[in-house]
Formats: sequence, C-alpha cells, structure tokens
Amino acid sequence: MARAHSLCAAIDIGGTKVLIGLIDRNGHIVARDRFALHDRREPELVTADTVARLRSRCTEADVKWDSLAGVGCCVACMLDLKREIVLRTPNVWRQLDVPLRSMLSSAAGLPVWLEMDANAAAVGEAWRGAGAGALNLVYVVLGTGIGSGILLDGHVYRGWGGTAGEVGHMILEPDGPTCGCGGHGCLEALASGSALAREGQRAASDNPATLIARLAGSGAVSAETVLRAARQGDAAAGGIVERAAGYLGLGLVNLIHLLNPEVIVLGGGLILGGADLMLGRVRRVVAERCGSWVDQRGMRIELSTLGDDAGLLGVARQVWEPADAQ
Amino acid sequence: MARAHSLCAAIDIGGTKVLIGLIDRNGHIVARDRFALHDRREPELVTADTVARLRSRCTEADVKWDSLAGVGCCVACMLDLKREIVLRTPNVWRQLDVPLRSMLSSAAGLPVWLEMDANAAAVGEAWRGAGAGALNLVYVVLGTGIGSGILLDGHVYRGWGGTAGEVGHMILEPDGPTCGCGGHGCLEALASGSALAREGQRAASDNPATLIARLAGSGAVSAETVLRAARQGDAAAGGIVERAAGYLGLGLVNLIHLLNPEVIVLGGGLILGGADLMLGRVRRVVAERCGSWVDQRGMRIELSTLGDDAGLLGVARQVWEPADAQ
Repeated sequence: MARAHSLCAAIDIGGTKVLIGLIDRNGHIVARDRFALHDRREPELVTADTVARLRSRCTEADVKWDSLAGVGCCVACMLDLKREIVLRTPNVWRQLDVPLRSMLSSAAGLPVWLEMDANAAAVGEAWRGAGAGALNLVYVVLGTGIGSGILLDGHVYRGWGGTAGEVGHMILEPDGPTCGCGGHGCLEALASGSALAREGQRAASDNPATLIARLAGSGAVSAETVLRAARQGDAAAGGIVERAAGYLGLGLVNLIHLLNPEVIVLGGGLILGGADLMLGRVRRVVAERCGSWVDQRGMRIELSTLGDDAGLLGVARQVWEPADAQ
Repeated sequence: MARAHSLCAAIDIGGTKVLIGLIDRNGHIVARDRFALHDRREPELVTADTVARLRSRCTEADVKWDSLAGVGCCVACMLDLKREIVLRTPNVWRQLDVPLRSMLSSAAGLPVWLEMDANAAAVGEAWRGAGAGALNLVYVVLGTGIGSGILLDGHVYRGWGGTAGEVGHMILEPDGPTCGCGGHGCLEALASGSALAREGQRAASDNPATLIARLAGSGAVSAETVLRAARQGDAAAGGIVERAAGYLGLGLVNLIHLLNPEVIVLGGGLILGGADLMLGRVRRVVAERCGSWVDQRGMRIELSTLGDDAGLLGVARQVWEPADAQ
C-alpha cells in the first residue's frame, strides 16, 4: 500500500481521446489509461468514465483512492480566470460554461486543479521534459491549429483576461491567407497542419499528376500527405513544408524578441511527425533573423521530449506544487 | 524641513537630455530640473553634474539630502540582469559596461535603483499615468526607434537574459524594408520615426514637387516633415503615415494575442506628436484584427498621459516599492 499522498491523478481531455495517469512526486507515471471520445462525449459521461477508470487503475495498483493527493486535469479549452469553468472547448464538447472542476471534484471526492492543455504541457516540459528546470519557457503546440503555453519566471502566464498565449493568431503576413479566426496571415494560417493541408490541396488541384494528389488518392489531402510527399522528394510538397517551417521560425523570432525565453519547446503532431523536414529550417530562420543574439545567449529551441504525456505531467506538477500554478 | 524619507530623487538619462526630479510617495514631482547632453557626456561627468543639480534642488526646496529615500535612475540602455551595469547605451555614450549604479551611489551616498527607460515608463504609467492601477500593461515607445516595457502581474518582465520587450524587432513583413538591426520588415522598419523619414525621403526623391520635399527644403526629410505634410492634406504623406499606423496596429494585435494586457500605453515623440493622424487608425486596425475580442474584454489602447515624466515617476515608484520592481 502506497503511503499517503505519494500519488496524484492526472487527466488530459483532448479532442479525440482522454489520457489518464497516476503520477508520483518525481513525475513517474506509475499507471496509465486512455479511451477514445466517440459519441459519448457529454461532459457528465466523460467525467464519470474518467473517474471510474482512475478508480480501476488505483485498485490494480493497490493504491487507496483516498490517499491520492488530488486530481489535475487539462483540457483543450478556454477556462475562466478562477480555473473552475470550461468556457469554451470547441474541439471536445459543444456546451459552453461547463463547471468541470466541481463536476470532477464531486465525482472524485478529491481536490481538483484545472488547466488549459498548452499551459499544462508547458509546465510538464519545464518539470520533466525538454526544458527541465527552465523558469522562462514557451511551449508551442503545432497540430491542426497552433497554440502555446507561456511560463514566465516560473509561473504560468495567463494575461489580464486569461487569453494570453494565442501565438497562432500572431500576424506574420498582413495580406496572407485567411485564418480560421477570420483574420489574415496569422501564424496558424501559414504553418499549422491545416495550412499544410490547404496548400497541399491547392497543389493537388493545380496538378493532379503531382505526388501529393497521388498519395491522397480519392481522399482529402492532409498535412501527413504533404509530409510524406516531401519525404519522397516531391518539390511542390517540399516547398510547402519549407515555407511553413520558415513562418514558424519567424513566429518564434517574434516570441523571442518579446519574451526572451530560455527555451522554446515545440510539441504537437505536426512538428513531432515532421521534425525531420521542419526543425532544421525553423532553427536556421531563428538564427538568421535573431542574428547572433540567440546563439550568444544559449537560447534553445527543442522538440518536446514528453510528447503526449506533457499535459499529464504538467497537471501532476500543479497538484504537487499548487503555488507554482498560479 | 521635510520629514525623513518623504522624497526620493529620480533621474532619466536620455539620448539628448537628462531629466531630474524630487518626487514624493504620491508621485508628485515637487522639484525638477533638466540639462542637455552636448559634448560633456562622459558617464563620470553626467553623474557628477546630475548629482550636483539634485543637491541644488534639495537646497532650494529646503530638503536635507540625507533624508532622501534613494535615487531611481533610468537610462536608454541595456542593463545587466542585476541592474548594476549599463551594458550598452548607443544613444547616450559609447562606453560599454558602465558601472552606473556604483558610480551614482558613490556620488550620491544613497541607495540607487537602475532601470531601462521603457521599463521605467511602463511602471510610471501603471502607477500615475494612462494605465493607473493596471497589473498587466505594455508601454510602447515610438520615436526614432520602437521599444517597450512590459509589466506582467504587477512586475517588470525582463526575460531570461534581460532582453524581453524588443517589440521593435517583431517581424510583420518578412520581405519588408531593412531595419537598423539588419533584419527585414521589423515593426521599427515599418512604423518608427526613422521609417516615416525614410519613406518621406523616398517620396520627395521620387517627386521633388511634392509637399514633403517643399517642407523639407534643402534639409533632410524628418518624421515631423511627413506629419506636417500629411496634416496639410498631402496624399503621399498621408499614405505614409496611414501605413505606419496600420503596421503599429498589427504589432499591437500580436502583443495582445501573446500577452493579453489590460492596457497598452503609447508614448514617445512620434505618437505623442502624431496622435491626431495615427491613433484612430491604430485602434481601428486592432479592432478589426482582434475581432470582437478586444471590445468585449475592455482592453484599452491609450496615449501616455505622463509624457516625458513617465520615466521619472517609474523610477520613483521603484524607490518607494522596490519589491514591485523585481
């Protein structure tokens, strides 16, 4: 039987799946689980299912439920400033203003800490990941969209209204392509998975004989299609990926000039799946555009080493060190 | 005779002049002085002259020198992380690594706090200026160049290596005009006083009959020339000013997305002298590009109300509340 408060529960609710872990004070995930979010995704059902699975993992691990230090939970969402209510989480459920903290707390009978997914990943990477020990770290997540979590002087920076870190909507080409936000030339419209897919689709439509079109077959062109075509030497795909990586580099240059972080950690499916094609270009653009500045000062741009576990470790850290999570 | 510690001394060392004040706990400047930096600008001379003038103001005000709480001093410079050494201050003096804190401390026999000018102005505006009471405030200074001071959660944010806030080198047009930093399309190359002067010079060269050329006469075109021509209805000048203001708006959009400040305060000669032509456009671009976001949340973009006194009040605040200045 584990001693009191040697473990906490961690939950990461994403757009397609829920990750669960039991995590110790050192950041070891001693038990884990995951389940897909299909149609049964109402907040009440997700909460109940998640807590039931956590209880099962505790039983298997011979851990008393009441000995858990608490529950940390991150969601792909916007939270209210007290981190009690999920204001908006378009990729998970459609309801607005879900009182997730009290729902989880009632279901679990334990204290609960809520966090936004990118903030949690930033905390996780600064604790046990690519930025271990850094006090000033920006975690940039590159997937279908682009977001970030900002850790300044050791604390999550949320901004005045809680919306800081919208790096995906930094404008880099004032007359650039339309973004999902309605704007133009945002980083997300230039360097996200959806930007790659859009440019790949355009290339395939322009020239149905291109490798991108052939790899996509009768399906839609995805970012993955473009990365595969680029790896096979397709010039159009290579150009698309290089341009996206270049814009990502410019976005990081702007982050560096504004925030002077010690380390920028890149996570998310697009960069973790396409680092071989993108990371070198990103770093070159930063080196060129920041001049000798960055090299002299040893600022680093790193890939996430925690991958999918970054959020779980981040919320666990917040359970263990709540003061750091403010 | 003033009671002990009812006043502090404040100094603002700029590129062309030194401002001096005796300031009380409420932010009232009870005595002030200024002198131009001509050729006698070596750090030792500036320090000695400044302290001598402060002593004279104290004598006139019947304030005992030893009763001063301390000396706050801001400089247009880059400081070391302990804020003791002026690493680089190209617009004031050429020497590197000037130990200004110990120099001032020796000359004055009082505790000294050093700060960068834009940081001091941010603190001043958040204390007694356009952002009074704000905990998350960005002060953007628009003059020959563009810089900023960032106040997050009530504290000056300096970054990992002390170089945070370089908003002037945020890239907004990857293939835009060359910047003084060697880069391309930085905000400073698009919206600063030197950018206005450069574009005005180009317009005057292209068409010597234009009002800009006539106002400049045989002299160089300055930002002021362009503003004057725009006020007199010159279309070329109006276009230059509008484009610069538009880029400034885009820069603020990026600041808002990243940092979600409560208020952005605009200071410096260019915007304080050209607000009639620029501020409306800046606010419109922010409203358009941030969507309903900004309006809903009440974020404000304000002109500096302290003007040249922002730095003096900021360093005085740091003397009175040193813990806030970390």
